[in-house]
Amino acid sequence: MNRSIIKFILGHVLVIEGLLMLLPCAVALFYGEGVGVWYLLSAALAFALGMLLRLRKPKSTVFYLKEGCMTTALSWLMLSFFGCLPFWLGGEIPSFTDAMFETVSGFTTTGASILSDVESLSHAALFWRSFTHWIGGMGVLVFLLAIIPMSGGGGSNMNLMKAESPGPSVGKLVPKIKATARLLYIIYLAMTVLEFILLLFGKMNVFESMCTAFGTAGTGGFGFKNDSFASFSPYIQWVVTIFMILFGVNFNFYYFMLYRQFKKALLMEEVRYYFIIIILAITVIFANILDMTAGIADAIRQSSFQVASVITTTGFSTVDFNMWPSLSKTILVLIMFCGACAGSTGGGMKVSRFIILFKSMGKELNSYIHPKSIQKIKLDKKPVEHEVVRATNAFVVAYLIVYVVSLVIIALDGRDLITTFTSVAATINNIGPGLELCGPAANFGFFSIPSKFVLMFDMLAGRLEIFPMLLLFYPGAWKDMLSKNSKKKDKSFEKKESKLLEKA
Amino acid sequence: MNRSIIKFILGHVLVIEGLLMLLPCAVALFYGEGVGVWYLLSAALAFALGMLLRLRKPKSTVFYLKEGCMTTALSWLMLSFFGCLPFWLGGEIPSFTDAMFETVSGFTTTGASILSDVESLSHAALFWRSFTHWIGGMGVLVFLLAIIPMSGGGGSNMNLMKAESPGPSVGKLVPKIKATARLLYIIYLAMTVLEFILLLFGKMNVFESMCTAFGTAGTGGFGFKNDSFASFSPYIQWVVTIFMILFGVNFNFYYFMLYRQFKKALLMEEVRYYFIIIILAITVIFANILDMTAGIADAIRQSSFQVASVITTTGFSTVDFNMWPSLSKTILVLIMFCGACAGSTGGGMKVSRFIILFKSMGKELNSYIHPKSIQKIKLDKKPVEHEVVRATNAFVVAYLIVYVVSLVIIALDGRDLITTFTSVAATINNIGPGLELCGPAANFGFFSIPSKFVLMFDMLAGRLEIFPMLLLFYPGAWKDMLSKNSKKKDKSFEKKESKLLEKA
Repeated sequence: MNRSIIKFILGHVLVIEGLLMLLPCAVALFYGEGVGVWYLLSAALAFALGMLLRLRKPKSTVFYLKEGCMTTALSWLMLSFFGCLPFWLGGEIPSFTDAMFETVSGFTTTGASILSDVESLSHAALFWRSFTHWIGGMGVLVFLLAIIPMSGGGGSNMNLMKAESPGPSVGKLVPKIKATARLLYIIYLAMTVLEFILLLFGKMNVFESMCTAFGTAGTGGFGFKNDSFASFSPYIQWVVTIFMILFGVNFNFYYFMLYRQFKKALLMEEVRYYFIIIILAITVIFANILDMTAGIADAIRQSSFQVASVITTTGFSTVDFNMWPSLSKTILVLIMFCGACAGSTGGGMKVSRFIILFKSMGKELNSYIHPKSIQKIKLDKKPVEHEVVRATNAFVVAYLIVYVVSLVIIALDGRDLITTFTSVAATINNIGPGLELCGPAANFGFFSIPSKFVLMFDMLAGRLEIFPMLLLFYPGAWKDMLSKNSKKKDKSFEKKESKLLEKA
Repeated sequence: MNRSIIKFILGHVLVIEGLLMLLPCAVALFYGEGVGVWYLLSAALAFALGMLLRLRKPKSTVFYLKEGCMTTALSWLMLSFFGCLPFWLGGEIPSFTDAMFETVSGFTTTGASILSDVESLSHAALFWRSFTHWIGGMGVLVFLLAIIPMSGGGGSNMNLMKAESPGPSVGKLVPKIKATARLLYIIYLAMTVLEFILLLFGKMNVFESMCTAFGTAGTGGFGFKNDSFASFSPYIQWVVTIFMILFGVNFNFYYFMLYRQFKKALLMEEVRYYFIIIILAITVIFANILDMTAGIADAIRQSSFQVASVITTTGFSTVDFNMWPSLSKTILVLIMFCGACAGSTGGGMKVSRFIILFKSMGKELNSYIHPKSIQKIKLDKKPVEHEVVRATNAFVVAYLIVYVVSLVIIALDGRDLITTFTSVAATINNIGPGLELCGPAANFGFFSIPSKFVLMFDMLAGRLEIFPMLLLFYPGAWKDMLSKNSKKKDKSFEKKESKLLEKA
């Protein structure tokens, strides 16, 4: 493995984090909050270490999927470590585990909190919590690709992007990775600003509008009020609902719309099914909770908000859905796993994966009737490559394994079964609240320290689509990392792989 | 599709069922119970219809996997329909839905009951309930293959066996299907008799020993006491525990042992992992429940019995494990899904499927590090065919889809989440008891009629490994069934397929 390039990129990531942490510093300064010092200190630490790591330029800038995955996993761990320092050092979250949990939850856009009273936090802390959502939503390495000239060539950059972007396959919007990354961030920023402005129109103040926009954009879920969005006006709730749904759409859709390729945009099966699922879920839950609410308008708003919040894995709430009837809770649990579109900021297993799985099952059934016929699974009228189908299956298995192992460790805490099952579901799918003890009206503070670390792992595994995090625990990866011969071996298929990647 | 052969085989199945129903008649006669009349009447009905269906010999005896699946699905539906008649007509289960539920639960070796007081049933009913487990355990069509000379040739019979036998791939023990089927039934019968004798030694009476042996052999779970096995002696409990585990072992293992191919037997990875999982689960649950029991011996016996009962999907109980702590319940839920070995009488997803899934994930991880290397997944030191891996993945997807759809319909009943989730888990995995309202101390009587039908579908889908039952709902299958041209098309690849199957 090319260790020097991994170190080099980690350096870049830390430098960026250091710079970004100056923003909460500014917020602290504006509100005259003393905790700003700790943000400045942490920023300085991250920046300094980052510069140190960046000192030695790597000899070879070519790197493969393994380096991409390792870099991504390590970047996110380091981001979380330095990101949690101000919470911990400033004493707003006295326990290191809790501070780390809160920060991992932020960057991974989970939004699960260990805090019972967020209203007592400083503005700087609230801002940083929400801002981590925004950074994590589109990805740090994608940001890096967008702003820094990387000389690795198309193949290398693709491997970095592939490791951090959600979904079964990564499409380049435009021929150059750098331009793709930049375009993604421009769309992301523009939509965030639009939501921010619409919230201001709803008489939300500037600070709250900013935090809300960050949280929605990254489909994060940290609130700044103890009751999340319950006390806000219906207008605000609707704006947030609509933007949660919009940020769960595959960003390719917006690209096609922007460049007036409407046909291509409308051809995207994933987006179509995403909306169909949302409408179905809202309809059923609406009918199911109607007699618990103040009327039709109220029921529509509540069901829409919660469905949007759960399917996009944001995790905001306007009501304690833990109190809802079984049918509604069952549907919420199911769409927790479904998740949003690939290539969006949402989490979960992604709609497109389910489309591929459904179609491969249909193909299997059909092969019982017509054993002779050779069909290919198609998505958006294009055949899905065998490679993608295999990776999708491997993903489901890896996902289930992580789920089961986490479950057994969390069960040691001895909480009820629903808390145990949904705490893992809520973190691995990057949603935030689960049910029962970790429901929307509760928090994750009561878990034991080992459980909290397992849940942190699940959040990171969920955000990075399992494999990069699993690789950290795969002995083969470390053997490769430490071996001196690996570089020679790598060279031999360097050309082959970059050719393959160019084609993709 | 070759409709005439399907009809012909269905006829055979009904004739066999008619004959087998004479056994509960004899039991009724022995105990002087009037309900015997209804068994005789139902037997006559099944026999008469069977003879009618068998009247016209099929022109072509060749049939493919689709006919195999259709025949299997329809056979099991008809078996259940005629099997439930005596319960219903005799008035021991007054509701037809409930009678059908009980019978499906019997044949599929689930053991989920709608009865709250089994001790009030007649001996004939108790015998028939347990005997359906024994018939369903090894399979009716396998029985048919073992006793009736079928002229369809190796390929055709293989397709029938494939559709009914549990597990990702079917191995022929001996070159001829007929001999394989016969051998399986001989091992099955011998082990049942052995357990029966051992139970007699424990001073259980003849009738109870017989019912217990049938229930254990089929890994069924219907008891004849309201508290299942709680009131029996430790000796009886241990005999049942050991035989439950033994009937969950892949029967190929016994074949190898019988023919002194010990190396081959010990090479079977599935059997090794099956025992490892059992030992791990018992150890953890033992430690977890120790302070709730009367001592170490009691804790070992209780944890062993329940683990054996759940992993083999039998469903007997000696204790209400719904009262156990979360960790134990979580482990029980997990091994519910795991299930026993392929080629055993147990249900669930089967250990070998998980081995294949685990290995394919390991392969995926390794491909991140060594993209060049081409590995094949191996099982028992032999490479697993790509076809089997694909079918395993398709199975998991189909399983999840059936699970989710069932869940949503059951949730309409408005019961708590754990009851909803575990009722589907307990039926699709053919276990019997779930948790909470459908726990070991409760029954399935309270579900609504639509829910009961969904659960019946789940039991059949679970027993027949999903695809045959899904095919019943697949429009393409019926189109093929009703089309006149299909026969011509079929002929064209008749030769190809039978050649392929000969190789397998």
